[in-house]
Amino acid sequence: MGKSIFKQIIDGEIPCNKVYEDDEILAFRDINPQAPTHILVIPKKEIPSMKDIGDEDIELIGRLLRVAGKIAEQEGISETGYRAVFNCGRDAGMEIPHLHLHLIGGRAMTWPPG
Amino acid sequence: MGKSIFKQIIDGEIPCNKVYEDDEILAFRDINPQAPTHILVIPKKEIPSMKDIGDEDIELIGRLLRVAGKIAEQEGISETGYRAVFNCGRDAGMEIPHLHLHLIGGRAMTWPPG
Repeated sequence: MGKSIFKQIIDGEIPCNKVYEDDEILAFRDINPQAPTHILVIPKKEIPSMKDIGDEDIELIGRLLRVAGKIAEQEGISETGYRAVFNCGRDAGMEIPHLHLHLIGGRAMTWPPG
Repeated sequence: MGKSIFKQIIDGEIPCNKVYEDDEILAFRDINPQAPTHILVIPKKEIPSMKDIGDEDIELIGRLLRVAGKIAEQEGISETGYRAVFNCGRDAGMEIPHLHLHLIGGRAMTWPPG
């Protein structure tokens, strides 16, 4: 197993359209956007899925949600609305085993969410 | 403005099909399920939306995600997969201004998520 594409982006080996970065979190635009705003917000730590969130990761994950909310404000979609989605496993179409949040907005969305 | 339906559920004034509860978090089955498993995981604290997550809420929100992952394991959807969705604002169809996570699984899901 080589590095995942997310790990390569984190390590700067693959470029990304960066929106936000701090020591623990990176956010960049999805290369296959599903709405006018579609940003991936990921922890730099390789947490495979939601079931792998350990005690030591709770602050990081809480902060990741908070950062996503701030990015939504910066993107101008906080008032109109947005969806924040974690896909976990095959049924949800998770392609990369590195926990990531899809921040999607800029258009009206339907229900159910896929 | 009276109490929201979530606040009434938290306060035990409206019944719910409870899945999990602790001092800060409540999880119950959605009354309009969109998949074989469809559970709402909510903080008891009335945080209106993601933009309102304060410094003091970070641990709570991180723990909420962790609890959702544990519930997915209990529901038997952790291996097959699931989607965890926060709706914020009108475009996403948010109906109740109390942050809540939809945990949806038990069937294959499509992309985009609505």
